[in-house]
Amino acid sequence: MGGDFAPVNEIEGALLAALEKTNELEVYVVGKTNTINEILKKKNSQPDNLFVVNADDVISMEDSPLDSYKSKPNSSLNVSLGLQKDKEVDAVISIGNTGAVLAHSVLRLGRIEGINRPTIGAMFPAPDGNIMVFDVGASVDCRANHLYEYALMGSIFFSHIFNVKNPKVGLLNIGEEKTKGNELTVEAYKLLENSKLNFIGNIEGRDILFGKADIVVCDGFLGNVLLKFAESILGILKARFRTHSEKNIFNKVWVGMMYGTLKKILADFDYQYHGGVPLLGINGVCIIGHGKSTPLAVKNMIFRAMEVVKKDVNKKIQEGLSVNS
Amino acid sequence: MGGDFAPVNEIEGALLAALEKTNELEVYVVGKTNTINEILKKKNSQPDNLFVVNADDVISMEDSPLDSYKSKPNSSLNVSLGLQKDKEVDAVISIGNTGAVLAHSVLRLGRIEGINRPTIGAMFPAPDGNIMVFDVGASVDCRANHLYEYALMGSIFFSHIFNVKNPKVGLLNIGEEKTKGNELTVEAYKLLENSKLNFIGNIEGRDILFGKADIVVCDGFLGNVLLKFAESILGILKARFRTHSEKNIFNKVWVGMMYGTLKKILADFDYQYHGGVPLLGINGVCIIGHGKSTPLAVKNMIFRAMEVVKKDVNKKIQEGLSVNS
Repeated sequence: MGGDFAPVNEIEGALLAALEKTNELEVYVVGKTNTINEILKKKNSQPDNLFVVNADDVISMEDSPLDSYKSKPNSSLNVSLGLQKDKEVDAVISIGNTGAVLAHSVLRLGRIEGINRPTIGAMFPAPDGNIMVFDVGASVDCRANHLYEYALMGSIFFSHIFNVKNPKVGLLNIGEEKTKGNELTVEAYKLLENSKLNFIGNIEGRDILFGKADIVVCDGFLGNVLLKFAESILGILKARFRTHSEKNIFNKVWVGMMYGTLKKILADFDYQYHGGVPLLGINGVCIIGHGKSTPLAVKNMIFRAMEVVKKDVNKKIQEGLSVNS
Repeated sequence: MGGDFAPVNEIEGALLAALEKTNELEVYVVGKTNTINEILKKKNSQPDNLFVVNADDVISMEDSPLDSYKSKPNSSLNVSLGLQKDKEVDAVISIGNTGAVLAHSVLRLGRIEGINRPTIGAMFPAPDGNIMVFDVGASVDCRANHLYEYALMGSIFFSHIFNVKNPKVGLLNIGEEKTKGNELTVEAYKLLENSKLNFIGNIEGRDILFGKADIVVCDGFLGNVLLKFAESILGILKARFRTHSEKNIFNKVWVGMMYGTLKKILADFDYQYHGGVPLLGINGVCIIGHGKSTPLAVKNMIFRAMEVVKKDVNKKIQEGLSVNS
């Protein structure tokens, strides 16, 4: 019930997923039953593997993540996590208040043993392959061992979901040398260097989009600012082309002709393109998406969650913790 | 002597500046006299307002900023700063090792009274007007009062150089609410809110390039990563267009036709476009530029330095300190 167009896009996405994977997927749509059933009725479609579960409370973008845990016990988020806690479902996806998803997941499902800080990873634009940044906002004041945990969880997620053996881990810094940076990165460098991860050293801001590392590790404050900055690039380019096209009719026609090529070349700058991102480190599976996610994006998030469950990423994180420590 | 094409681009830029402002400018070219004179001879031009000063040592990009202060006392950087210290020149510009420029300037010229941390500001891409980010690397571990100093110095520089009354100051954060962020930003918010600056509150990564604030304030680690990330965008776009054009002859022709429009629309994404950036908070005037600066960029840095001197920005910073505190 938390997305910008809730619950329409959530339901349409759930329908797409349920219809595409009839035999291997059960989708539970959690929220106000009346509203959900009305939409399903209009769609004239309720596949056998789609179930509706009632939840009367709605967490808004303005709600405090922590307060809403107590004040809205019957939120769609909390009821969904309850289903996962009770092993009725294997994963939860949400396009609502990210802070609430994070806080409620930790409170309701707990953390993986040995993990101090769960992390949210994000996909960055990459024409071929994938680039992920950890953390993009789960924690804002980090210590070095948290960065190490992000690198470990990110590597395991990345290698299993994208089938890349030993993905390259880069520590986001202001210079390449080992001694560069602030207290946090100097300390984190040592931990990463002594781990069994495929640590390629420090990388700089300019290296990210060129894919120097598969996994970029930084504190959640920096990652969050950077993610939002990166997400703004497409809008900035669009606005500039619009301004240019409005100058005269020739420009208008010309920009119109360029549009298709630009759209193709910059497709992955559209955050819709990547679907959801994982919340790693909790005792469960949770995929988080943009509030504006389209039904297609919601469907892809569900499939991503299926993959994380099937490949038992959490178990592999636990194994990784013991191997690397 | 420190730029990537030193000392050719430095000398050519100095010549351009000296020839353009015969009556109001004296340019001192500091470095190995023999090399400089050879180049000037080839150019067949030595205007009356251009002087050559010898300095035998060269600081490379690899030199430690602090060590080079002692080990290379006759570097072009140090000799230049000495000229400023002795009031023989009003300003120094450099396209060499930024860390060395920062460290040597502070050691040689000292800080403005009341300023704890000098700051380096950077221009971010903006089609109309200007967007500046402070700090982009002078300090990596900041306290809240440092962010406040950056905001103050940035505002004064911005208002006098770009003739904008009360430029808007935004605190770079992960959410708009006053309580959002890490310890540093929560504390800095209070200082900025209670100052006489035109503080518009927190801004997020996505707001920067849309020009929500004129001056974006953040710690130097974040600012440095963000600057390098922003500088990489043009290269990323170029690489993508290149890959696209190499697919077939039709694409090649088509991308070729688009090139002019793209170049025009994205001109300010090229960091050459902005010339140099100021090092603020030192007892003197220092403009820093990219190692790859063209002669034109060097010329513009010299003119920027002239403006900072003429408008007595440092005096205004001192006045601002007493008004705002």
